[in-house]
Amino acid sequence: MVYQVSNPRFVEEITRSFAKQSIMGLIGAKLALVEPGVVEVVVPYRSDLSQQHGYLHAGVVATLADSAAGYAAYSLMPAGSEVLSIEFKVNLLRPAQGRSFLAHAEVIKPGRTLTVVRADVFAIADSGERALVATMLGTMICLQK
Amino acid sequence: MVYQVSNPRFVEEITRSFAKQSIMGLIGAKLALVEPGVVEVVVPYRSDLSQQHGYLHAGVVATLADSAAGYAAYSLMPAGSEVLSIEFKVNLLRPAQGRSFLAHAEVIKPGRTLTVVRADVFAIADSGERALVATMLGTMICLQK
Amino acid sequence: MVYQVSNPRFVEEITRSFAKQSIMGLIGAKLALVEPGVVEVVVPYRSDLSQQHGYLHAGVVATLADSAAGYAAYSLMPAGSEVLSIEFKVNLLRPAQGRSFLAHAEVIKPGRTLTVVRADVFAIADSGERALVATMLGTMICLQK
Amino acid sequence: MVYQVSNPRFVEEITRSFAKQSIMGLIGAKLALVEPGVVEVVVPYRSDLSQQHGYLHAGVVATLADSAAGYAAYSLMPAGSEVLSIEFKVNLLRPAQGRSFLAHAEVIKPGRTLTVVRADVFAIADSGERALVATMLGTMICLQK
Repeated sequence: MVYQVSNPRFVEEITRSFAKQSIMGLIGAKLALVEPGVVEVVVPYRSDLSQQHGYLHAGVVATLADSAAGYAAYSLMPAGSEVLSIEFKVNLLRPAQGRSFLAHAEVIKPGRTLTVVRADVFAIADSGERALVATMLGTMICLQK
Repeated sequence: MVYQVSNPRFVEEITRSFAKQSIMGLIGAKLALVEPGVVEVVVPYRSDLSQQHGYLHAGVVATLADSAAGYAAYSLMPAGSEVLSIEFKVNLLRPAQGRSFLAHAEVIKPGRTLTVVRADVFAIADSGERALVATMLGTMICLQK
Repeated sequence: MVYQVSNPRFVEEITRSFAKQSIMGLIGAKLALVEPGVVEVVVPYRSDLSQQHGYLHAGVVATLADSAAGYAAYSLMPAGSEVLSIEFKVNLLRPAQGRSFLAHAEVIKPGRTLTVVRADVFAIADSGERALVATMLGTMICLQK
Repeated sequence: MVYQVSNPRFVEEITRSFAKQSIMGLIGAKLALVEPGVVEVVVPYRSDLSQQHGYLHAGVVATLADSAAGYAAYSLMPAGSEVLSIEFKVNLLRPAQGRSFLAHAEVIKPGRTLTVVRADVFAIADSGERALVATMLGTMICLQK
């Protein structure tokens, strides 16, 4: 898919906005890739991010997917926009067990008002092997300031 | 709706399991209500739980809803079960702005294997007024140990 | 919930629009209730609406829920608007077995652009007893002509 | 993705089961592809399948996607199983306008009990050009007879 960029400074703006998502600092998440229509976020496993069996909590999985998805949408929005999540759905496919976790989000359908995004969340083992642990489908809205 | 309880010790088991969800400690969330088919989780606002505009991050909203929903389902499961989230969908209805946030989850359809749960997340203002900021619909699975 | 009506002719407009949804004629569906923020659609069971086990097909369940939800949203939109479904999620709770089926949709959150709607689909037995067979959560968009 | 087939007669069983989904006959839908983990269903446009603007009704879009998704899951299930939809979410991306419509479903995560499936629905123009009009993410359950 070829995406059309309207804000040439989208990388800086996403980097700056991500730094303001304080929850990302709290859970130790970082931007790993910022390209037109595609954003990745990674978080190393920490025991204080887990649910009762020691896996990454489904809410943290959703948090990663939502952040990556929001910025994937934002990368295609005009300068001076704001992005907000309207809704998303997550399917948890396997226990989220790994050394770190990567959310890879891609815009499926950009739009002036609404952008639909898919995100896959992978668990990365010590060996570097990736396993798909969740997939997300969501809608983002562009607000003009 | 009248729910049938099969594990008389569900309150203790949920309390113990919640204490092991270390992410709940990290974000400062607490169980506020545990009844058959109904669970509530609250979290006071903290600036390190926010997205780029200072609202509670949609991922944290989802985390609260998912935890409350999982335990609402678990309250009706037999002793010795485990509960896992299969999937959930969240609609973000308003910016999550408030002094604290309450997720109220209710089982819509209990089942031997699958349980469907709805959760509403409210922002609570200083005045005590509640505003519905998100609603979630999800599916939980019962695993026998 | 109290809804604010801005189009005093919403009942006529919904009735007229529904008559143009030719799929409703094909499956034998009818409007059963049109009130501010609340719409119901019914369809008698017919064997040519079924899936492989003779139950109402999940797609027909979704069709009823989506139509009722779209018009529930539309009832609150200004005169001259159009409504389109953005997304919806359906949980199928029980086999859709009955003499007829009723979708009851209610607006959860009205909005100038987006409206979030919940719809429940009930199977109605010969005895008149209702069983909840599905629940839907969706987003509708208001387009100004 | 490589799928493991356990029922060598899955093509015949899907063909037979599809023929029993009487709603498929009513709307004129046909199986277009049956492979391990991948199923396609097509329906030519008819004016009696439309919503109020003449586009294919979102419920029909969901019906196609759900049928294709259910059989994609079923293709990987053991002989003698039944498949039922647990839940699905559809994002409507563009008005469903075309000469015919194709739902392409692929299993994302097979499982003994639950199978997660993605389905894309394309509108096909007179020119043969395809446009993605909807994407669906759903969960199917395997029931042993």
